[in-house]
This record gives sequence, structure tokens and C-alpha cells, in this order.
Amino acid sequence: MKNDKQLNIGLFGFGVVGEALYHILSQTPTLNAIIKRICVKDSSKKRSAPEALFTTEANDILHDEDINVIVEVISDSDAAFSIVSQALQKNKHVVSASKKMIAENIETLLALQQQYISSLLYESSACASIPVLRNLEEYYDNDLLHSLQGIVNGSTNFILTKMLEEKLDFTTALKQAQDLGFAEPDPKLDVEGYDAVSKWTEVLLHGYGIVTHPTNTLFTGIQNLNDKNVAYAALHNQEIKLVANAKKLEDGTVAAFVLPQFVEKTNPLSFVKNEYNGVLVESSIADKQFFYGKGAGGVATASAIISDLSALRYNYKYEYKKLYNHIPSQLSKNFGLKIYLSFQSLEFVAIPEFENIEKLIDEAGEKYILGTISVSNLVKNRWWKQDGNSIVVLPNGIVANTQAKIKDVKKEDIVELV
Amino acid sequence: MKNDKQLNIGLFGFGVVGEALYHILSQTPTLNAIIKRICVKDSSKKRSAPEALFTTEANDILHDEDINVIVEVISDSDAAFSIVSQALQKNKHVVSASKKMIAENIETLLALQQQYISSLLYESSACASIPVLRNLEEYYDNDLLHSLQGIVNGSTNFILTKMLEEKLDFTTALKQAQDLGFAEPDPKLDVEGYDAVSKWTEVLLHGYGIVTHPTNTLFTGIQNLNDKNVAYAALHNQEIKLVANAKKLEDGTVAAFVLPQFVEKTNPLSFVKNEYNGVLVESSIADKQFFYGKGAGGVATASAIISDLSALRYNYKYEYKKLYNHIPSQLSKNFGLKIYLSFQSLEFVAIPEFENIEKLIDEAGEKYILGTISVSNLVKNRWWKQDGNSIVVLPNGIVANTQAKIKDVKKEDIVELV
Repeated sequence: MKNDKQLNIGLFGFGVVGEALYHILSQTPTLNAIIKRICVKDSSKKRSAPEALFTTEANDILHDEDINVIVEVISDSDAAFSIVSQALQKNKHVVSASKKMIAENIETLLALQQQYISSLLYESSACASIPVLRNLEEYYDNDLLHSLQGIVNGSTNFILTKMLEEKLDFTTALKQAQDLGFAEPDPKLDVEGYDAVSKWTEVLLHGYGIVTHPTNTLFTGIQNLNDKNVAYAALHNQEIKLVANAKKLEDGTVAAFVLPQFVEKTNPLSFVKNEYNGVLVESSIADKQFFYGKGAGGVATASAIISDLSALRYNYKYEYKKLYNHIPSQLSKNFGLKIYLSFQSLEFVAIPEFENIEKLIDEAGEKYILGTISVSNLVKNRWWKQDGNSIVVLPNGIVANTQAKIKDVKKEDIVELV
Repeated sequence: MKNDKQLNIGLFGFGVVGEALYHILSQTPTLNAIIKRICVKDSSKKRSAPEALFTTEANDILHDEDINVIVEVISDSDAAFSIVSQALQKNKHVVSASKKMIAENIETLLALQQQYISSLLYESSACASIPVLRNLEEYYDNDLLHSLQGIVNGSTNFILTKMLEEKLDFTTALKQAQDLGFAEPDPKLDVEGYDAVSKWTEVLLHGYGIVTHPTNTLFTGIQNLNDKNVAYAALHNQEIKLVANAKKLEDGTVAAFVLPQFVEKTNPLSFVKNEYNGVLVESSIADKQFFYGKGAGGVATASAIISDLSALRYNYKYEYKKLYNHIPSQLSKNFGLKIYLSFQSLEFVAIPEFENIEKLIDEAGEKYILGTISVSNLVKNRWWKQDGNSIVVLPNGIVANTQAKIKDVKKEDIVELV
């Protein structure tokens, strides 16, 4: 039987995920996968696995002919890239959980996969337990995929849930997320959207065949959101979530961004609470489909690694169908967003950059703009990311932009609109 | 490239699904799949496709060497079985949407797939657009799969949603479902649970490797539910859904049934409204995962057929991993259910069959029992399916049954418990 293939694993990293994986594999002999060696940075730490397994020498694993699979779950993405590329060149299969490393090195990793026969799988790196990459790879034809919306970062979603439901302030909620093991070691990666945009870079590749660097996608995190924004959402029977978006525009290009967004109660994403993740797929024929599961935590991430290991037993390899077998889509820079922008002082808001402003409130207790702004303006400038300003995309907020027309709107004109 | 494989399709059936499929394929040339011939029963009907495509002779398709894929979407399951088995024997790939046919002939179809090289796929037959079978086949190890809960029949879910949210009566809601094309031609198949249990038979096979006939699984539909039951649920901040269940018990066997069930607002299944379907997967490591999508309608069903066609281009074949590569699970008959039983007259309730009764209300406006009953008693007897009685499983209602102890409870004893 095909699944008799024994997986001898060399594991890099023994943090929350590595440790969870080790214990699950030890308790699940039917998976036919054993961890033969574990490479860690610091050999002096006390670990919950036999000491003889550990090494600090990567080559003890990379040069071990008996090891046929590398599992890489370390946080240093440069080191991770070095390990993964060496392993592929040695025809070892690789399972990686490092979204940042994958997203930032997609081109090189694609080339390596073309050149060498081994398989590189990284389902655990996007939405942890949810099989989103493989479903995008296997089920949805590029032509038919209208849009993707995802809550892809468990840590920020946990914080937003606590802010909304338990009225916790940002710092307390973040502390809780860290204590529960949901947050990246560097909270900035979660909170400011870096983690989400890395995952979304993978999603764009498997969903649309788009090869891009995370920095090419407009993104921010939840660092500037405050209780007034959350209250505004609640007043309108909505929630604020950090939502990653991809939408096929009429010209065939794909609008993509990761920004805080108002989510209506009828949107399945509103069901996604705490550390859970969810991805909503809209295609021209299947209509709406929704995938939901735990998006953070050692065990949830380990579960996707195990799915990848299981797939290796059956010789599964990503075929990157949207990229190689279709005409891949291109990212669009030519669209606008309907946004809510809350501000502390209008003097730090670049009013002329709005294409139009539907509402501007500048009172003592309430200061916000509802308007449309082109993505090229958001990408070019950083004023909207500054302290005191926070931006939330409105539901169905993507508007096609035939031309980024920037009106020279004067403040006096606008206030009359209110 | 692998996907250059041209699919020449012989289509059986041109109802709601067949017609939707025909039009989608005509408009999507990149799928590399064309319908060469369509077999229908009645050649005189006016159709929305060129007349030359149609035939009433199955052999015009089965004997056409140029046709390499059969898509079968007819409602007569005997005819469907005959077509599918002939096609497999002629080494043609088969995509089928006929849950009843698949579920009732699983053993024979498994044998045919072992014997012949061609692939038989039927994702569209379970939950229409949701890729539930393939996810179960590919992602979840049998040992780790704690439980599955699904809303797998769009028509009954549509009716229940309308009864709850719009206070429609059963008959009006059913009529609407039929008008919208969600209901099977024979409404009994939907309403009395036959359709759901057929789909669940497929789910048990791909999730747990269980080969069983639909009639071996305890099931009923929503035919006996009334507005009082719906109101009771609402009063307890719950909804009633027709839920298919599978749960691994401590002894390793699997408890499976399809029954109306109270669903709490925190359960993702409560989000599943109208014709949507949803499947909640709980595994020991991935924790909760949830798949949601359109579960009925021609286009939703066609979308899953297209996913199967797309998979055929890459030579995908179900491997039935849980059955052939693991020790398959067995169905349990030895468990109990905590239920709400509403009745019109206590004289038609088999009180002694309850293992225990927590509450019995027998008043003019309100007549129900909350108690535990063994599944073997429900399987053996039909009193609980009779007019006037309706049964709803409580949340987390499965209880392990070391022994089906049937107490001889007297009515007098019970009423004191109230």
C-alpha cells in the first residue's frame, strides 16, 4: 500500500508548534512518521523530549541520508529559508510553517521546486488548521473565483473579539493572546498586519496564480483601532475584523489588501471569534463557501503539518495550477476603497486625496470621514497609518477605478456635506 | 502540461443540474471539457441546448469511444447504477450526483473501482458545492477524527429556516423550496431524511472507512416537527436543524444518526440558513473546523461536478484511505440519546423504553418529555415517528451506553419528577 512509506523527520524548531507536533506524532503511530532528530538554537534548555534527539547542528539533519522529510517551524525566517532551500536541493521533502519566509521567497522557492523533485508543503503557514491552500489549489478554477475574504490572523482576531465582547483595552487583550500562545514572538508581526499579508501572499498564489512580495500588497493591522471605532461598528450592528481581501475586477486584475473592515452580521466572517480564522470564497458557480477553524496555537498549527505529512505519504505536491496551467491573474493598483477614517485632528488628514467624501464629522466626541479613496493614494502615503488616524473599510467597499481622479476638495466644501 | 487532457463528456440527465452544467461548461472553455452527447428519457421536450446533442439511447454514449467521461445526474437511481457500472467497466471515468444510488450500492461500486482503472467521483452528491468528501478523504486521519456534524440537506434546512424566521407553516415553506429548485422531485426524500442519510452514508465511508447501507443508520426527517417544537427551541435560545451526526465513542466504534437536533447559537451550524449546508469537523488536534456552502440548487451542484471534472484532468481518484489503508471504524448500536420528545397523547409514547426521564410535562398547552433513550430502542420501534410525536436530540445528546438498561418506569413515578 502506498501509505507504507515511512517518514523519517528532521525537525527544526521546538517552540510551541514543534513541541506539539512531537507529542502528537509520538502518540499516533498510525501516521507512520517519526521524528528522528530535532535541531534547536539553544541546547541548554530543558525539553519535553529525550535529550539524544536534539542537536544544534543543522547538518546533522541535512546530511542524514535516512531523514527524508524536513519539518521547519522556526521563527527566524532567514535561517528557515536557508534550511528549506538546502533540503529541497538534497531531495528531501519539506513541510514549513513559516509564512514570512515562504511569502518573501516565493520566486526562489518556485524555481527550486521546478528544479528538484521533492515536495514543499506549507498548509500550516496559512490559517493554521484550515486547509485553505490545498482547497484553493484543487477546487477553484482561476476564472471562476470572484473573491476571497479571510480572517487569517488569530492573534488580532482574538484581540478584537476581546475588545468588542469583553470591552478589554488593546494592551490587556494582547497580553492575553500572548499568554495563550496565539501571538507571534514579536507582536508587531501580528498586530501591524505583517503576518496576515504574508499568509495572503500565499493565498494569492494558490487562488489566482499571482506571484508577488508581501510589500506589494496594501496592508495595515489593528494597531490604531480604538474603542470609538469599535463602538461605531457596534452602533451599526457590525463588527471590526482585520480582513484580507482579494477580488477579481472587471478588467480581470485582482484587487488585494489587508485592512480593518466592518463586517455585517450576515457575513460568515462575523462568526469568526477569538483565535479562529475563516475564509470566505465566492465563485461564479459555487456561490459562497466558507472555511472555518482554529487559526493559531501550537496544536492547531501542528494539525496542518500532520495533514501535509499525510499528503507526503501519498506523494502530494503543489502543482501551482493557477500559475502554470492557467493564465495567472495580475494584481491591480487601480481601484478605490470606501472607508471610514477616524481622526484626532483634521490637520493630519489628507483631505484632497479623497475621491469623494460622503460625510465628515468633526465634533468634540466624534471625528470621522466616510469617503472613497484610491488605493494608489493609500499605498503612496502613510498619513492614514499615523497615530490618531484609523481606517476601516466599509462592507462591499471595493470600487472599480477607471482612473484615479484626485479631486482638489477644500475643507469648506466638505463640511457642508455633513 | 497535465491539464491538457481533453474531457469529452457524455451527460445523462438534463434536469436542473444537467442544464446548469451544460451552460457553465459552454461558457468556460478553459475547463477543457465539452459535452458531446446528452441522454434524456423524453426526446420531445424543448431544451436549451442544440437538438443534435440529445439522444434517448444510453448506448450512443456508452459505446462512443471518443467519450472518456460520463456525468450522471438523473433521478432514477436504478437506471443511474446501471449506467455508472457499465461506464466503469468500459474504463470511462464517471462523475455522479446521485447520492441515493451511490449510498445504496457502495459495496458493488467499491468492487468495480478496485477492478477497473477508471475513477468514480461524486463530490456533488454530498452537500453540493462543499468539498466535504475530498476533505475527509485527504485531511483527516481516521484515528484523530472525533466527530462530524452536518446539515446536509438544503431543502429541509430551507423549510426550517422559513418556519423559524418567517413563521411560515411547513407546507408553504416546502412549496417555496420546490419553486426554487432546492427540493428533490419526490419531497419525501428530503423531508423524511432519506436524502440526508444517503449523503451521510458517503460521509461515513470517506471519514471513517465505514461501509454501510443507509437503512443501517437511525434517521428521520422534519415531517413531524411543529411550531411548538420550534417555539420551544427559540425559548431556549436554540434552533432546530436536521443534523447528521457521527461521533467516535470510547470503544472506538462510531455513533451515527440523522435526526432533528437543537442547535445552540455558539455552534457554527446555527449560522447555516436556508438552502446552505455546513459540516462541522472535530478532530483531536485541529479542534473544530467548519465547511459551509450552498447545499442545493442546480448551479451549486454543477459547481461540485466541475470540481470533479477538474480533478479528473489531474487523474484524481478516491483512494478510500480510511477503508483500505487504516483499520476502518465500525458503526455502534450501543449508545443512548438525550432527547426532547413532544407528544399529543401520552398513550402513544412508550414510556418504559426510556432509560431515564428528567422531565415530563403533560398539560393542555405543552406536552413533552426530556429523557434518555437507547438507540437500539429507537431503531427497533416506530412509535416515536408516528403522527403527533416528534423527537429532537439535545445538544451534546450522545451518551455512551455500557448496556441498554431499560427501566420499567411507571407514569406515576415520572410525573413527580416534573
